[in-house]
Amino acid sequence: MTSRKSTIPLILRNSDAASSATHKPLALPPQVDIEAFNKFITGIIKLIGAENVDVISSKDQIDDASYMKPTYTHDPHHVLPQDYFLASAVVAPRNVSDVQAIVLAANELSFPLWPISIGRNSGYGGAAPRVSGSLVVNMGKNMNKILEVNVEGAYCLVEPGVTFADMHDYLVKNNLRDKLWIDVPDLGGGSILGNTLERGVGYTPYGDHWMMHSGMEVVLPNGELLRTGMGALPDPKTPKSMGLRPEDQPMNKTAQLFPYGFGPYIDGLFSQSNLGIVTKMGMWLFPNPGGYQSYLITIPKDEDLKQAVDIIRPLRLSMALQNVPTIRHILLDAAVMGSKSEYTSKTEPLNDDELDAIAKKLNLGRWNFYGALYGPEPIRNALWGVIKEAFSAIPGAKFYFPEDVPANSVLHTRDKTLQGIPTYDELKWIDWVPNGAHLFFSPIAKVSGDDAMLQYAVTKKRCKEAGLDFIGTFTVGMREMHHIVCIVFDKKSDEDKKKAHWLIRTLIDDCAANGWGEYRTHLAVMDQIMGTYSWNDNILLKFNELIKNAVDPNGIIAPGKSGVWPRQYNKSEWKL
Amino acid sequence: MTSRKSTIPLILRNSDAASSATHKPLALPPQVDIEAFNKFITGIIKLIGAENVDVISSKDQIDDASYMKPTYTHDPHHVLPQDYFLASAVVAPRNVSDVQAIVLAANELSFPLWPISIGRNSGYGGAAPRVSGSLVVNMGKNMNKILEVNVEGAYCLVEPGVTFADMHDYLVKNNLRDKLWIDVPDLGGGSILGNTLERGVGYTPYGDHWMMHSGMEVVLPNGELLRTGMGALPDPKTPKSMGLRPEDQPMNKTAQLFPYGFGPYIDGLFSQSNLGIVTKMGMWLFPNPGGYQSYLITIPKDEDLKQAVDIIRPLRLSMALQNVPTIRHILLDAAVMGSKSEYTSKTEPLNDDELDAIAKKLNLGRWNFYGALYGPEPIRNALWGVIKEAFSAIPGAKFYFPEDVPANSVLHTRDKTLQGIPTYDELKWIDWVPNGAHLFFSPIAKVSGDDAMLQYAVTKKRCKEAGLDFIGTFTVGMREMHHIVCIVFDKKSDEDKKKAHWLIRTLIDDCAANGWGEYRTHLAVMDQIMGTYSWNDNILLKFNELIKNAVDPNGIIAPGKSGVWPRQYNKSEWKL
Repeated sequence: MTSRKSTIPLILRNSDAASSATHKPLALPPQVDIEAFNKFITGIIKLIGAENVDVISSKDQIDDASYMKPTYTHDPHHVLPQDYFLASAVVAPRNVSDVQAIVLAANELSFPLWPISIGRNSGYGGAAPRVSGSLVVNMGKNMNKILEVNVEGAYCLVEPGVTFADMHDYLVKNNLRDKLWIDVPDLGGGSILGNTLERGVGYTPYGDHWMMHSGMEVVLPNGELLRTGMGALPDPKTPKSMGLRPEDQPMNKTAQLFPYGFGPYIDGLFSQSNLGIVTKMGMWLFPNPGGYQSYLITIPKDEDLKQAVDIIRPLRLSMALQNVPTIRHILLDAAVMGSKSEYTSKTEPLNDDELDAIAKKLNLGRWNFYGALYGPEPIRNALWGVIKEAFSAIPGAKFYFPEDVPANSVLHTRDKTLQGIPTYDELKWIDWVPNGAHLFFSPIAKVSGDDAMLQYAVTKKRCKEAGLDFIGTFTVGMREMHHIVCIVFDKKSDEDKKKAHWLIRTLIDDCAANGWGEYRTHLAVMDQIMGTYSWNDNILLKFNELIKNAVDPNGIIAPGKSGVWPRQYNKSEWKL
Repeated sequence: MTSRKSTIPLILRNSDAASSATHKPLALPPQVDIEAFNKFITGIIKLIGAENVDVISSKDQIDDASYMKPTYTHDPHHVLPQDYFLASAVVAPRNVSDVQAIVLAANELSFPLWPISIGRNSGYGGAAPRVSGSLVVNMGKNMNKILEVNVEGAYCLVEPGVTFADMHDYLVKNNLRDKLWIDVPDLGGGSILGNTLERGVGYTPYGDHWMMHSGMEVVLPNGELLRTGMGALPDPKTPKSMGLRPEDQPMNKTAQLFPYGFGPYIDGLFSQSNLGIVTKMGMWLFPNPGGYQSYLITIPKDEDLKQAVDIIRPLRLSMALQNVPTIRHILLDAAVMGSKSEYTSKTEPLNDDELDAIAKKLNLGRWNFYGALYGPEPIRNALWGVIKEAFSAIPGAKFYFPEDVPANSVLHTRDKTLQGIPTYDELKWIDWVPNGAHLFFSPIAKVSGDDAMLQYAVTKKRCKEAGLDFIGTFTVGMREMHHIVCIVFDKKSDEDKKKAHWLIRTLIDDCAANGWGEYRTHLAVMDQIMGTYSWNDNILLKFNELIKNAVDPNGIIAPGKSGVWPRQYNKSEWKL
């Protein structure tokens, strides 16, 4: 690849920044001294504007309470000290050219960048960089336009800052909800692009977000701008003579219709990775199915999980279960509805009797299955008949529609989520403990009763050892479940944080010993998890490193992301 | 990536092969002289066995009539001279270790390898290599085992030689058809793995083969063995102490259930590419839907295509059309049922009146829509009601089930294909002309009446200019159509071949000028098509070249595939 013939000034060499250290960040990246940092950041400020750059030079700037502050660049759910993963500064580029300029400047110093869309990534590290002192690139603050909503093609094209809630609002405001829905994850405030790149999931039939994306625009580590799939075909209505910058040229009209394009299909390289900064992405919207009904099936006993999962498997494969349903542990629902102290004075993990009592009090099962039916009424009725019959094999299983349950029930939230209406209630479960924060532990499980029971037993046992309640849910994909264990801890208690960290580290090893791996993880355990994907002498990691070093020879983009380190870093020194 | 610590002998340096040229292939790769070739191939023979190596040293070995000969290594539908794309030899490795040995040997000489699964790839180049003199690696001849059919998980794990027909036979013989179907393309004889890597399609709800694969095992260009996705997790039941070769170790139990794994999702790099040799692949099987009904809707007039496509779009998006249906031009069906001379004495392209006459004779429309309904009878009836009502808006549209049409009708073939029963009848249309051969031209189209009409008009016009009949079909994906234009020519006529070659080259440019690109193509026009994916100074190609040179520094795997050339080749010299 030739180097970019750039019209963008090389901001460092020509910078007239004073060499005195005006800016004193709390953290600096490796191999960068305070003078070099000042030169670098002064150049960035000059180019992008002071209003779009914040240096993190005081602990006062780090505030867990607000995602909205410009200086939000850390992990509000810090399992390590609050400032362990900390940016030196955050920059919010105004457009693609700004991103390219930042990348070119970073190359000169091998300065690590940590791109975020808006930095939610709750339970997986928030906005924090893996390498302290990185420049967090907040892609979403200014680049937050819905570029297109195409009704005929049922897709949208978005910038990094567009949230699920933004898209839903757009559909509502433009009277398009009768035609199109956006699949949403548990919390509606996240970035569509960011969630999809992390391979997050939602709960409608379009719940596999990665599968539902089509076409990307990416700033490569050398500053070049790439469009994938059919986006690599020029739009014939934009002749070169028009002089539009590449970023401003319309996407090819098939870029959001057909994901694969011609030749190697490279999109996957930019997911959970550090090979580029994605600036635009196409996403498929779910056509309004012409009818909808959410439901709850309560499953009385802890050990019924086995039978429930074995019931679910054939229903899901045959598409009688049309969407991504969830089997939630009683405490996940209980914790959404109140803190632990509202149920009990006990601080230790609750036992079976206590869990039964909570389930009884809430009129829920030890497990609770939330699903939905999509389509016209005759279709829904036919499917409901099949589902109800299948689950009736579980003694004591009960069936509810939203109108059957109290107003504060989780079903009312799921009723919204499962039809693509964003909500913000789900994370209430972190208040199960005082000063609640959380880590997600997310292994993939077979949709098999035995496997689910074993994975549940392994994780529950370790939670108990850590003195924590098991809180979790199984999210049912087509042939697997994302088992999401919510490790809730008091972030003001160092002891609690140590326990939570011990727990996730132990669970990773326990699960690897059973042949289970995680689909996504927090910064603090990325290396450990990549280390479990070790088949044949870690050939997967070696391959990823080969690609990383080729595409990003100066190692500037998100070093350490997913456990992939560029050659500039001695990864053994970065182990946690 | 470190070099492989190999137990496999470096066969060249230690070879005791005579330096005299025992073998005299018709073609040699660039930079390899006859002595070097003999040393190389003698080493390969010694290692893999003479029975698994054939040197192509006589034109008698090149036979269009049989796919089954060991020496089948060319394109039986040659639009250039029959020996234009020709292997020096073909080797059939017995196992993964053989593949690794071949790769290591090839690295020593930068000897080009052209891996095929079984080499069908009809209309796209057959078994022929892009670079003449390449060693064709016939992966499927010996490596043709069905490694697993998992009923609970509804998937299979296959080696390269397993055909769609093999899998169907397996399901039948094991009484599994009541549980699982395999999605099949038009012809049942192709390799599942090969078709999927080329991103081929079938016609059931699992028609997008690429989307339905999960997990691969790949020999990298340096000889290392990689497993992707969850396959990178060791199987805990196979401790190292067992001493199994990596290739023989069981796959992780979730490798065929969840495709993405952890970190960058790299599978796409190995599709339509030259970055490795895939040795195993997981594929999802379609759960028997519990009921099935195929149908034909005849659409009377040529210009009805517009209305039909606009009817199809919302039906497909809403999943009332559950599968990948097709809208076939009258001549595709006519040609399956007979040669041109059986309909007319005319050799020029047929005009509207003549096409109408053929349609009338066959009781078909100028366009014919083949679909199917899946599920229990009430579901099928509900969907059929919706579909029938929608298509009834087209004056004169008629509706047929298989029992309504004569025995030789295409609907009887489609009835099998759309329920995953492989057939071999479809390619009969190449006999439309004497000595019939074909090239596929395969642009992606919006599911929009206007777009379809324009693409049809552009392609039909050029077919006419080339003196050829338009024969084509639109295959309806979720949001786009694969428009497959079948360029049928007399391969014994140099003039006809020139016309066909001119036609495809002209169509590529015409379509690019309209913003349309192809999803897949024949060897002869790979460079041209990659050249149309030129947005922003060919950054996509540059990125692909960067990856290619990093992963395959000696440029041994399929140089020129999809227009991606390693640095050892001056690509301007290879333009066709």
